[in-house]
Amino acid sequence: MRPPLDLSLYLVTDTRLCGDRGVAATVAAAVRGGVTAVQLRDPGADARALFSLGRAIQGELHGTGVPLIVNDRLDVAVWLGADGVHLGQRDVSPEVARRLLGPDAYVGLSVSRAEQLAGVTDAVDHLGVGPVFPQTTKPDADEPIGLDGLARIVRESPLPCVAIGGIGVAEVAGVMGSGAAGVAVVSAVCGRPDPEAAARSLVHVLRQEASA
Amino acid sequence: MRPPLDLSLYLVTDTRLCGDRGVAATVAAAVRGGVTAVQLRDPGADARALFSLGRAIQGELHGTGVPLIVNDRLDVAVWLGADGVHLGQRDVSPEVARRLLGPDAYVGLSVSRAEQLAGVTDAVDHLGVGPVFPQTTKPDADEPIGLDGLARIVRESPLPCVAIGGIGVAEVAGVMGSGAAGVAVVSAVCGRPDPEAAARSLVHVLRQEASA
Repeated sequence: MRPPLDLSLYLVTDTRLCGDRGVAATVAAAVRGGVTAVQLRDPGADARALFSLGRAIQGELHGTGVPLIVNDRLDVAVWLGADGVHLGQRDVSPEVARRLLGPDAYVGLSVSRAEQLAGVTDAVDHLGVGPVFPQTTKPDADEPIGLDGLARIVRESPLPCVAIGGIGVAEVAGVMGSGAAGVAVVSAVCGRPDPEAAARSLVHVLRQEASA
Repeated sequence: MRPPLDLSLYLVTDTRLCGDRGVAATVAAAVRGGVTAVQLRDPGADARALFSLGRAIQGELHGTGVPLIVNDRLDVAVWLGADGVHLGQRDVSPEVARRLLGPDAYVGLSVSRAEQLAGVTDAVDHLGVGPVFPQTTKPDADEPIGLDGLARIVRESPLPCVAIGGIGVAEVAGVMGSGAAGVAVVSAVCGRPDPEAAARSLVHVLRQEASA
């Protein structure tokens, strides 16, 4: 058994926001800044493009101990030999993912309403909960659930939860106060001129919260 | 080893063209009319929607001996326990598909230029070649290759080829004259008021060609 995923600062990539720097270089900088897990997400990319991005990220992550999780495309996750997959409610079932990726893989599931907890099975090992706040990187996302919605799901969830959606430095204290295991960030790192410094600032406030 | 796929009349589904009749009922009618293989294709559907369509089609195909092939989404093909997958040049690699689906699965690959034959490996067992003629159901398709382009690829291919793209009753003779193993149809069946009769007409001209 592999140790549980360190969800404390979970980077979700956004190819457009990474811009000219590129996804792999952004990931490398973010990991230097303290990111603990990386999710490759690019719903507009075809499987080959996603695979190429994943290979480049794996090159940067090699030796860092930071795992690569692939959003949605279980087939590409298998192709990459990624550390796990993150599934939405409309993606393939977590059972298929567990079967194909094996017992040591990380299988995350997105949850935006407490009612969805009833569908969480043993195949899942952590939840992505949100969007907590209004966000700009996922046009088809559900309505923001707020800190109250987050706290309710965290309280009722049998699994560790990483909060996502509109979370930056200013939101970390409130989010961690809800009992979440960590924060997932997109534009707070990918969209910044200095992703390493952006990640470092988030780590700083996460540590303050942990010791508070 | 399972027998080779009967490519003679290969239906590719189009959810929009199937309209109010629905994909599964269209497939059922087409199979009564003589379709020999069915490919589920819906690039706009999420994995769950594709899975639901696939389950409904499997219900109709049960006992007919007609196999179900899933376009692009290898993960959904595994989830469905489908008979195979059809991959484009930008989809996951055929090797991954072969590994996940096993030796008995059908693994098809789209080819639109003779140069792409160099990339065809042992993992692939047949090719989809086209678009032969102008077509309306795949907006991102390559330029039509015509009967000359089809004949060249069929001649140079180590594998059986099913021709696709703008093929209806009037085109069958020319296409089969190129040496193709069969014709793949979309709007010639899915877009017709009577898909069973449409399939039957295609079977009729295919038999005329075979005995000519």
